[in-house]
Amino acid sequence: MSDDHKIKMQETQRKMRLAQKEKVHKRGVVIVVTGNGKGKSTSGFGTVLRAMGHGFNVGVIQFIKGKWKTGESRFFAEYQGDSVYYYAMETGFTWNTQDREGDILHAEKTWEHAEKCLQDDRLKVVMIDELTYMINYGYLDKNVIVSAIKARPKDQTVIITGRDACETLKELSDTFSEVMEVKHAYQEGIRAQKGVDF
Amino acid sequence: MSDDHKIKMQETQRKMRLAQKEKVHKRGVVIVVTGNGKGKSTSGFGTVLRAMGHGFNVGVIQFIKGKWKTGESRFFAEYQGDSVYYYAMETGFTWNTQDREGDILHAEKTWEHAEKCLQDDRLKVVMIDELTYMINYGYLDKNVIVSAIKARPKDQTVIITGRDACETLKELSDTFSEVMEVKHAYQEGIRAQKGVDF
Repeated sequence: MSDDHKIKMQETQRKMRLAQKEKVHKRGVVIVVTGNGKGKSTSGFGTVLRAMGHGFNVGVIQFIKGKWKTGESRFFAEYQGDSVYYYAMETGFTWNTQDREGDILHAEKTWEHAEKCLQDDRLKVVMIDELTYMINYGYLDKNVIVSAIKARPKDQTVIITGRDACETLKELSDTFSEVMEVKHAYQEGIRAQKGVDF
Repeated sequence: MSDDHKIKMQETQRKMRLAQKEKVHKRGVVIVVTGNGKGKSTSGFGTVLRAMGHGFNVGVIQFIKGKWKTGESRFFAEYQGDSVYYYAMETGFTWNTQDREGDILHAEKTWEHAEKCLQDDRLKVVMIDELTYMINYGYLDKNVIVSAIKARPKDQTVIITGRDACETLKELSDTFSEVMEVKHAYQEGIRAQKGVDF
């Protein structure tokens, strides 16, 4: 390669790098983790843990919660009010009944907490666990959700989890992962256990 | 429905439930989270957080670590020695060089920590992050890994993460999830950021 050519090539590389650098920017993103496989909610908790490790404040809102006392609720309770804003839907006994009106009320109440987080610029990461179901069941208005997420502080990252994320959430997202179930322990008759599944 | 029929039906149901109960059992499982999408390591951290919430002890071994100070390392450092056994591979500057021998030494040293966790029945959950690469690069012996995992305490759950999990890990696993990348923020030119990506 002639020196002349080498200099030209270096110049081209320099320009490309500069263009690349301009393209690259930093802002909060919307991450959606959906699919039928195991690992969606835990993926959100893991990102929250990462943010906490760096000393950032986080918000965690859970839309569906069984009657079990979950590991995450016990974990976040310890940081509640301090570096963590945590709220889990109070389904009580209504979730498994056919009380649609009651469920909607609970969903709306929980959404208010999510909205509060989405307006709080002290929170670096906001996780909204199992939100997809609220949209798919028609319990919450998709447009209200999209508007609130779009209007959030510029540096805030939002993580949404749950099966069957709709097309609207896909469009809204910057990162969209689908967790596929290839194998699951329950197929071998192993029941859900504390510290792993809840 | 006649009373007679009802009683018969109830008896059948009772028998079915009993059979179901016998089939169901509890033991530690092997969870593999692989695929090219975002959310594998965080899914492991999230399960660890869940276990910690319930007061269980956990082990976290990370095979690849960049030069960045990660959120998880800072997080686990606070619990180190207490309820958490944490070790991250010291790749120093060798990882990006072509120093295969050096990399293998680091991998083997890290594996010793993983082995220690897999023999410790005080640990409810052991996460081995990015182990798949060590196997695929031929840095660690697959058979040694499989034997150690199979010989672990009965109630211990192991989570293995990383792309391209091999067939052997799939066979070994009870739960196997594949995270597919549908969209990723870097495609929009958004760079990796603290508290979200590391």
